[in-house]
Parts: sequence; C-alpha cells; structure tokens
Amino acid sequence: MSDKDINKSYERSAERMRGDKKTLGSQLTNKDFNDPTIHGDIHNDMEIDYNSIEKSPSMEDVHKWQREHIKKDDQGKDGYPLNVIIDPAMREMYQAVNKAGMTNVFDRFSEQQPIQCKFCVEGLSCQLCANGPCRISPKSPRGTCGVDAHTMVARNFVYRHVTIGTSANIFHAHQAARTLKAAGEHPESGLKIRDPEKLKKYSDMAGLDANKPINELAVDFANWVMNDIHSPYDIPSKAVEAFAPTRRKELWKKLGLFPGGGYSEVAYAQTSCMTNFRSDPVEFLLNSVRQGVANEYQGLFLLDIIQEILMGTQEIAHKKQNMGLLKDNMINIITNGHMPLLAHVAIDLASTDEWQQKAKDAGAEGMQILGHVCEGQQLINYEGTHNQKGYGGQEGEWLSQEYLLATGVVDLFMFDYNCTVPTMPLYAEKFGTKLLSTHPVIKLQGTETLDFVPEKMKEQASKALEMAIESYKKRKASNKKTYIPPHVSDTMVGFSTESVKNALGGSFDPLIEQLANGNIRGIATIVGCTTARYGQGGSNIFKITKGLIENNILVLSGGCTSAVMQYTGLTDPKAADECGEGLKAVCKQLGIPPVLTYGACVDIGKMTHTAKELADALDVDTNKLPLVIGAPEYLEQKAVADACTAVALGWLVHVAPVPSITGSDLVVKTLTETTETLGLGKVVVEMDAEKTIQIYIDHIEKKRKELGLTT
Amino acid sequence: MSDKDINKSYERSAERMRGDKKTLGSQLTNKDFNDPTIHGDIHNDMEIDYNSIEKSPSMEDVHKWQREHIKKDDQGKDGYPLNVIIDPAMREMYQAVNKAGMTNVFDRFSEQQPIQCKFCVEGLSCQLCANGPCRISPKSPRGTCGVDAHTMVARNFVYRHVTIGTSANIFHAHQAARTLKAAGEHPESGLKIRDPEKLKKYSDMAGLDANKPINELAVDFANWVMNDIHSPYDIPSKAVEAFAPTRRKELWKKLGLFPGGGYSEVAYAQTSCMTNFRSDPVEFLLNSVRQGVANEYQGLFLLDIIQEILMGTQEIAHKKQNMGLLKDNMINIITNGHMPLLAHVAIDLASTDEWQQKAKDAGAEGMQILGHVCEGQQLINYEGTHNQKGYGGQEGEWLSQEYLLATGVVDLFMFDYNCTVPTMPLYAEKFGTKLLSTHPVIKLQGTETLDFVPEKMKEQASKALEMAIESYKKRKASNKKTYIPPHVSDTMVGFSTESVKNALGGSFDPLIEQLANGNIRGIATIVGCTTARYGQGGSNIFKITKGLIENNILVLSGGCTSAVMQYTGLTDPKAADECGEGLKAVCKQLGIPPVLTYGACVDIGKMTHTAKELADALDVDTNKLPLVIGAPEYLEQKAVADACTAVALGWLVHVAPVPSITGSDLVVKTLTETTETLGLGKVVVEMDAEKTIQIYIDHIEKKRKELGLTT
Repeated sequence: MSDKDINKSYERSAERMRGDKKTLGSQLTNKDFNDPTIHGDIHNDMEIDYNSIEKSPSMEDVHKWQREHIKKDDQGKDGYPLNVIIDPAMREMYQAVNKAGMTNVFDRFSEQQPIQCKFCVEGLSCQLCANGPCRISPKSPRGTCGVDAHTMVARNFVYRHVTIGTSANIFHAHQAARTLKAAGEHPESGLKIRDPEKLKKYSDMAGLDANKPINELAVDFANWVMNDIHSPYDIPSKAVEAFAPTRRKELWKKLGLFPGGGYSEVAYAQTSCMTNFRSDPVEFLLNSVRQGVANEYQGLFLLDIIQEILMGTQEIAHKKQNMGLLKDNMINIITNGHMPLLAHVAIDLASTDEWQQKAKDAGAEGMQILGHVCEGQQLINYEGTHNQKGYGGQEGEWLSQEYLLATGVVDLFMFDYNCTVPTMPLYAEKFGTKLLSTHPVIKLQGTETLDFVPEKMKEQASKALEMAIESYKKRKASNKKTYIPPHVSDTMVGFSTESVKNALGGSFDPLIEQLANGNIRGIATIVGCTTARYGQGGSNIFKITKGLIENNILVLSGGCTSAVMQYTGLTDPKAADECGEGLKAVCKQLGIPPVLTYGACVDIGKMTHTAKELADALDVDTNKLPLVIGAPEYLEQKAVADACTAVALGWLVHVAPVPSITGSDLVVKTLTETTETLGLGKVVVEMDAEKTIQIYIDHIEKKRKELGLTT
Repeated sequence: MSDKDINKSYERSAERMRGDKKTLGSQLTNKDFNDPTIHGDIHNDMEIDYNSIEKSPSMEDVHKWQREHIKKDDQGKDGYPLNVIIDPAMREMYQAVNKAGMTNVFDRFSEQQPIQCKFCVEGLSCQLCANGPCRISPKSPRGTCGVDAHTMVARNFVYRHVTIGTSANIFHAHQAARTLKAAGEHPESGLKIRDPEKLKKYSDMAGLDANKPINELAVDFANWVMNDIHSPYDIPSKAVEAFAPTRRKELWKKLGLFPGGGYSEVAYAQTSCMTNFRSDPVEFLLNSVRQGVANEYQGLFLLDIIQEILMGTQEIAHKKQNMGLLKDNMINIITNGHMPLLAHVAIDLASTDEWQQKAKDAGAEGMQILGHVCEGQQLINYEGTHNQKGYGGQEGEWLSQEYLLATGVVDLFMFDYNCTVPTMPLYAEKFGTKLLSTHPVIKLQGTETLDFVPEKMKEQASKALEMAIESYKKRKASNKKTYIPPHVSDTMVGFSTESVKNALGGSFDPLIEQLANGNIRGIATIVGCTTARYGQGGSNIFKITKGLIENNILVLSGGCTSAVMQYTGLTDPKAADECGEGLKAVCKQLGIPPVLTYGACVDIGKMTHTAKELADALDVDTNKLPLVIGAPEYLEQKAVADACTAVALGWLVHVAPVPSITGSDLVVKTLTETTETLGLGKVVVEMDAEKTIQIYIDHIEKKRKELGLTT
C-alpha cells in the first residue's frame, strides 16, 4: 500500500465523522432522561455492525500513516475523534461502536462540548458549603464566606486532586504490603517471593534484620511499611528517611515538607480544606508538595518494590501489544487496573497444564490472561510473567476498554483499581463479558466483587478462572458475531533501574558517559494517561515523543503513554532510525529503542529511583539532572499527585491539558515560578507540541550547562 | 416601647435595605478585578459610621420583635438580610459595615445571586479529571468517562463533604489526644487534668489499667486514642468497640459499616473517588455512613471526653452572651474556632493577678478572653472556665465575626480551627486587631501562626496575651472611634449527659418518666451552623425551635444554633412560658429552659452519649428513641459527616438548605428512604419551618407508639 493510499483510506473515516456528528446524546429527549434505565446507555436495539469497519492497514503502514498524519496539525474539532485516535485497533472498533449509537468515551466528550463551564475550568467555582455554590467573577470577587479566587483555586486543587491521588497511591502500597505479608505467612495463598534479594536490600535500608528467614522478613518489611503509612503526620516518615535522596531530605526539612504518615497527611490536608479554615493559597500548594513526598515514598516507590518482590523485578524482553492478541477460540481474560496482585496469581494458575486442560475441556484452545491499561504495562514487564503460558500480553490503554469489550470475545474482565470506566457493565451485558472486581474499594453498578483477602488469593483466582470458563461456554453457545482487530505491535519491555543497569554492565557509567559526550542530551519521562480531548487521544504524546527523540533526548514511558509508544512503534528498536544521530548511535549499539517503557504510571516510582541513582553517581542533587517530567495527556488525580512528587524532587514537570488553576494568577505563579526559587521543581503548562518539545530541550540544555556539560 | 414601635423601628432598616441594594461587588469594574489588592476587599476610603446605626431596642423588646417578626413569613429576598438577622448586635453592626461598603458575609451572599449554577446546585457537575469539567443534562446524560448522574452526585458528596468533615472531627480528637498526653508528661505546659474520674472511667472502658497514676494514665489513654485513629481500615476500631451501643455494633458489622482507623478510612474513601474507580452510588453512600461511625467514635465522642478531662466536665450555670460583653477599656481577646486547647491555658493565665496587673499597667481596666463561635459555646460550658476572672463569656455565632471586628475593640483574635472567615485579615488591618492562628493547619493570608506544641502551651499563651496587650496599647494610642452594641443575653449553659443526670438526681429515670407520661413528647437536637441564605440567618432555627417547644418537644442545641437560642432567649428559664403545657411544667419544676445548650457542634458527641444512656435505660436500640436530629441551617462538611453519624445511629436527621444531591433520584431515595429499611436512620430535607416542625412531631409520635407510649 502506498503512503498516499494509506492516508486516503485512513482519512476517509475522519471525513465521515465530520459529516456524521449524530451521537447518542443528541438523540435523547427529556423524556428519555427521566428514565434512568436508558439514558446514555446501550439500548437493546443497538446492534453492532462489524462489517462497516474501515479496516486499518498493516502495522507497518499504520506507522507510516501515523507519522504523516501527525504532521498535519489536524487534531482539532473537525474530524474528531478519528483525527486523534492513532491506535489502529481502537480506530476500527470506535467506528463500529459509534455507528451502533453506543455510548463511548470519545462521543461523550463531544457531547460535553461546548458547555464546559468557564468557572469550573478555571477553578473559580466552589461547592463546599451550603451557602454556595459560589462563583468568582468581577461582580462577585469573593464567595459568600469571603474566599477569594486564589484560595478557592488552591483549595479546589487540594481536595479534588492532590488528596485523592495521594491516597490512591498510598492505598495501593498498603494493599501491596498486605499481600507481601500474606506471602510470608501463607505459602498456600499462591503468592511467591520472587525477588528475595530485593526484599533483603530494602529491608536492610529500612533498618530491619535482613538475615532473617525470607518469609519472616517479608512480614517484618510489610509491617514496617504499613506502620509508616499509618503513623501520625507529626512523626517524620521512616520510609522517606530511608529511601529519599539526602540533599532533598534536608531541603524538605527546611521547608516543612518532610511528611509523616501518609494517611494522617491526607486527613490533615482534607481538614484544611474545610469551609472557613485555611485561606492561605501558598500554604495549600506547599502542603501539596509535602503530600507529593508521601505520594512517592509511601506510595509509588514502596508499591513498586513490593510488587517486584512478589512478581519478579523487571526484565528486558521482546513482547506483543494490542487487541490482535485476543483469540476467538481461546478463553480471553482481561485484567484491568493498577494492582495486579490477584491477577498475577491467576496467571500462575492459568499457566498450569491443569487449567489449560480445563479450558480445553470447555471446548477452547486454551486460556490466556491479558493485561489492560497500567495493569497490562506492569505484567508485561515482570520477570515473573515472562514465559508464562497463561499470559497473553498487553492489550490496550484506558480509552480503548469499551471498544475492547465490543469485540465480543472478552470472557472475563477482572479489575482491581482505576481505570475501569463506569460503562463497563453496559458493555459487559451487551457483549456477554463477565465482570469481576477483585477489591471492594472498586465496585461498579451491579457487578460481582471479591473481598481483598491476600491469604486466599489462590482460591479467589481459581474462582475467577472458573467464571471465565463459564462465560466462554456461554459465548460459544450464543453464536454471536465477534470481531478482533488484527493489529499487534512489537515492543521491547522491562526497563527499570536494575534492568537498565544490568544491560549497561552493572553501572550507570556508560549512560552518564553518553550524557556527558552529548550523544544523549538528556532524559524525558513521558508518563501518565491519554485523554479524549481535541488534539490528544494519544496523538499529543506521540508528537512530543517523536520530537524529543529526534533531538537526542532519551524517553522513559510509564502509563497509558506506554501503550501509545507501543502502537506507534517507538518502543521497537527499529525506532532508533527516527532519532537524532547521537541517540540513534546509542540505541543501535545497545539494540534498544529510544523509548524505554518502564511500565505503568505507578512505575514512575522506578523512574525516580533511576534518577536518584544517576544523581548519586554524579554526586549532585536530583534537581541538577538534565531531566524533564512530562505528562502531555494527564487525566486524573494520581497524575496530579505525581506532579507534586516531581516538584518535590526538583524537576520541571510539563502537564497538558491545562489544569483548573488558571483562575488565580497567584496559584499559577506559585506552581510555575516560585517553587523553583525554593529549590523545588516547577510546573509548565503547554498545549502545543512543538513548543513543548522546545521547552524540554531548553530545560535540558540549561541543566547540562549548570552541570558543566559543554559538548 | 410598644410592640408596634419596636417592630416599626426594626422594620425600617429592612425597608432601607430593599431600596439600597448597592453593595460592593456591583461597584467593581473589570479593571478593579485585575488588581488583586482591592477586589472585594476593604478600601482605605471606606470609613465606618457608627452614628448611622439604627439602634436595637432592649433585649426584652428584641425578644418581642423576634417573635412577631418571625410570624410574618417575611424572610425571603426582599428586605434581605435584615429580615433574617435576628441577633440585635449583628443587626446593628451589619448596618454600619454595609453602609461603609465593606465586604461582608450577607452582602456577598447577595452578590452571588442569582448566578448559582444549577448543575453545581444539584451535584451534576464534575471537576475531577482533565477530560472535564463535565455536566449531566438530558443532552449529555453521562460525563466523558461514562459516569452517570447517580455516581457523580454520590461521589461529589463523598469527597467534597463526607471525607473533609470526617477528617476534621478526627483530626480534632487527634490534637486533643496530643494535648492530653502533654498534660500527663509535662506539668509545666500549663495543662491540667481537671476531671481525673472521667479519664479513669473511659480508660477502664478502653481496657487500660485505670489504677495507674493519673499522669501516666493520661499518656496511656492518649496513646490508645491516637493508635486507634491511626490504625488500618481493615482492623476494627477499638474505640467503636469500646464506646458504641451494642446493638448498633452488631448492625454495623452485618452491613459492613464497622470502621477501622479513621484516617485510613478517609484515605480509602478518597481513593474510591478517583476517576474511573468506584461507580456504585449506593456503595458511596454506605461508605459515608461507615465514615459517620468513625466520625463519632474516633472524632466527636473522643474529643469531647478528652476536652472535658482537660477543661472540666460541663456544669450547669447562668452565663452571658453577645457583643455587649466587650468593654472599650479592657483588653478584649476573642478566641475563635472549635478546639480551645491553647485558649483554655490562656484563660487560666489571664485569670491570674499577674496578668490582670499587666493589663492595668498597659492602661486597661483588665483583660478578658471571650469565646466566639463553637469555641465560645464550649468554653462557656466547662466547669474549668466558670468563675475564671479572665473569662468574659460567649460572644457570637460565625456569621457575626466580621461585624465583631468592626466594633473596633477587639485587640486579639486567636483562632484554632474552623470557622474563621477568609476576610478576617482585611478587617483586622482596618480595625487594628491582631490575628493569631494557634495551629498550622489553619493559616490565613499573612497572619502569624503558632506551631501546635501542647508541651509549650503556657509559653505560647503568654505570647498571645503579650500580643493582646501591645495591640490594646496601639488601639488606645490611635484614638479611633469604636462602637459596642450594648446587647447581652442571659443564658443557662452547661448541659450534658453528666450534668443533666446529676440535676435529675443521678439517673435519667425522671426524664424517662416525663417522656412516658407525655409531658415531654420527645427530644429534638437542633444543631449545626447558621447560614446567610434567604429564610435562614438564624431565623429558621428560631422558628423551628419555637414550634417544637410549643409542642412539648425538649430541644438540645449545639453549635451556632446555641447562639441563636441564646440571643432569642430560648436558653433562659423564662422561656418555659413559651412551651406547651407539659414541657412548661417540667421546665418550671426543674428551673430549666426548654432548650438545653450542650455547647458546640462538636458537642454532638455529648448528645449521642445522652441518647445512648437513654436507650440503655430503656433497654432499646438507639433508633427506637423518640428523637429527631435537626440541622436547619447546616453549612459545612463536618455537619454532613455528623448527619452520616446520625444515620448510622438510626435517627431521622433533618437538614436545610437542600444538599447538592438532588441531581440523582437514586441518591435522594437511598438517603431518605432506603437506609431506614436497613435499620439505619434517614435524611429529611425540608425548607419550610412549619412543615419541618410537623415532620419532627410525626416522627416522634411514631417512635412513641413503637415504644408503647400511648399517652
């Protein structure tokens, strides 16, 4: 297929979209809305027509199209959403779902336009107390209580974003610690300690007796973690003390940003958001940075090492990604979320002959568990998943989950944390998928939920697999049509502090050398989510990353950004050809791609760890590194907490879209300028990809100069 | 003064308001708004004119006016706000502040009308993620993520209201426990253990060795409390186990509502509010009830008993309330908030001859500390405050604090928790008041803040008093005009479980007898805040309470409602004459008013305690009592958490104004109907005072019937 043909074929669907804006919402009347069973839902008369799908070309041709398309600056409202969906599988499935009039994420975004409220967009609306809701405007410059724009914006930022995100990451670490404890105490749980050396290393750093039998040590370390998470806010965190960079700790102490126990910190912050309570906007923001420290060292960092202890540290390998991994004649289990604790036990089970035989007894060729979203990005990286017969690969990003179920071949969709969208029950019912939550903290409307009991994970995993078998039987008996987009991407995976260091021969010196000689100008982490917004949908991530590697900036990815890197071919070593000369040479020499996927958004903890080791090797503070943190399509609250972590560690963190803080020039200035003057990092907000790339380059070159790297 | 004259005089000011709607906000231009230093603030050219104040009549005449005025159904938009402000002191000061064009709470409420956003009012706007903000409407029945109206409303309810309120009450208990520990360990802190018997009693219930020396026991109990607050969510709370009613505990266990550690619970709830996480609305609401249990037994209940241990259990006494207690030639210190831990040490100090002499040395007649808002309602009740020379009485409700500073005679305004409005720095600067925060959790823009160090409270209290002396000197040197509204109310105070039981001769039997014979039909707690809304401002509380006592329902008050009861004369034993025959007889016999002030909103914990003892005496579950919980002018997040507590304990809880949950019929139905079918309580929303009274009566009569009380 010629480039022209590919583009023509692919653009046709975008054009059709422009002329066919009729989506579900606009067809609804007031009457429909009063019937809660149907509004915005999937009607019985909506039938999906797989034949209508405009098929994507081969992956090779898709890659060509992606690169041409993205040059066009054509990611605005016209032609949306096919002008932003660059995943070939999602492009196909979106068309069928949209044509059937089924509610889906991109069409819902369209339906929300253009009524997005200017006050809410700018953070100038407060719904906290019963005198409100209040809006700040020139005619009413203060809310009823007297709150001004600055306090309102800063307070909204804290209780809507920072405390939720910080809680979520720490809660994750808490559940991981419970699981590690069960692994130590209950071998019959199916849990394994796959990296005892890592457990010993961090237990030792925590001041525990690392010479104890490994099962006892697991319990000790888990208790130590849980105690720290649960300690009072005014008792300095032992985890921060044990694991954070020394120079940072001193700075945090000086600035009052050294946190205590994370949950107590969250409660402190929530308390301060009470009506008629704290009204100093800067205090809200500095407190957010303090939560960012807890978010890292009681959240991301701990959950990452505990999960690696359980599932095996990341291992560099070649793997596959996307919906083409689904097989019509296999039992397809998707595990979704961010906390693959039960899922990993399920993979262990599904990899046994016993369970594969059960699948065959049900008429299937076998059973496979595929990871979706960040769960998938984690599973694909762990040494303990590689070479498991029951593991099927990484399947997609969060935006694609409705389209995934619309294939009709997903027998069980397990989920344990974010991101599982609220419409999953509608799709599950329509397409015969069994839904199963594996933690009570996440319950969807009318779905089955397992208690979180690490001690019984083997039993629970068996139950899940049984459900999948039953579901498969029903699917086959129903004879319903299905369609699997045939696209699969090749990806190198498994990068992390240890695996990179091992690949470099046991030290970061070779990397530092390449940084010093200028072959690699610096490092950018491109992390976080994808959004459904105009100009985004993955396309902003792709544009920016392309520009960075062309400018010899090595990229680490984590989160749904990793899926984008995978379906655009940037995590394939072949992508070395797309780099600037310096980076190309390094990649070719090492046989690596210019984008190293560290995995999930929660694997940001691994990136900060790599950065810390680099800083240690250079004997500088973390804020001296030629490093930029980017979240070019950030979506949710954990991303905001992670941005606070980056600021705490002294890094420039770029975010897009624009956070809802623009209603206060003081808040904007504090986060984008003032924090840097304190030795912290700062936030940059920029929507334009070209400008973003230049911002990254400029920051990295500035840092190089400060480090004395003059080449 | 005849009734007619009083009304005429008082109504004149309301009429003037109708014709003079020019308030600060409407005078501002866009240009002004761009200058952050002046918008909505107090301009230098704003001079207060005390002579323009339409003086209120004597308290006796005020009471007559209040009773006539409230009959008129005249509390709407026309004539606002003087048609809702029934506090004579606030009425006076409002006029002067309004005339000077100074930003103030009632005028700001006016400025926010009529633009209150319908979506936000109904809970149908979500600002959580970067795909939003989204609004639910017939044309867009789901947010971009797929969230429907029910989940959006329920989730907004949790992270905006429930977790903030629950955090705040538990955080308060946490600080009280830290203070108790310091009292045990550091006698030099100025802290005293005034009720060792109470400490022993609850330590014993907690399973501690109550025979230890009292200082050691204080430390043990404080640690026990802090450990429980900080324990994991999956470890059942020891405090709930020790102090909650047995039948309730069984129910909560059955329903999954028995909480673990409160901070961990809050983090759990915040986590569940992540985008693309929990989407079961009922789960959000049941989890709110679970937080309500923690809110009570790790929050209100604990903070109440710890504060009584430190400051002396409540003691029935006759006291004074309102701005007339201020004295131009005294050093006037106001302590504001909810956590009078440092304030109480300051009162101890100010009561010494040494500090009174220092005041005299500065040219004053002496120094007095008056409590404002709930802080004031607590201080006025404690045995340890009564008969203290340095204590000046209760001063006002939260709505009046700007007007209070406008008197020009407040030398120091200390604050430790909510409710301190964000405009205090503006008023302080204008009127020469020194502002001082006593806990870093509350910082206003540009005000001084003390660290919270219970061990050093004596030192810190001295510092505060020094500040007040300096401030007084400046005030006197400036020769600025001042004005003190001369109004003072007589009030009986100090009711609580123990003091009521003591007054009844050591047992609740006499009260139960009066309930049984029907002289008292039942009990209503009228608690919480006052709002600036049309129809409210204290007037709704007053109307409802009048109606309840006329129908022989005994009222307990707590919070800013107590101030309303005080300035309307309802906490004066004379108010017995306004009751129905049965209640009148009881009040006359005992020499008590028909409204028993339990103190602050945080003293709700004492009311639930009284209810528990009544239920125990009757050997029934708490939901069987002829009891209604009312928050007729609820304002903020702690009130919402407290409502969740009431639902957990099985009570009907009336709230007004309408919470922002009306966007989901399912959420409304769950909270107003379904919870009751589970053995929990339920919420009633009603704005009309007459209808509200009938709802209370009907519920109480229904409960009487169920108890077999047929008289």
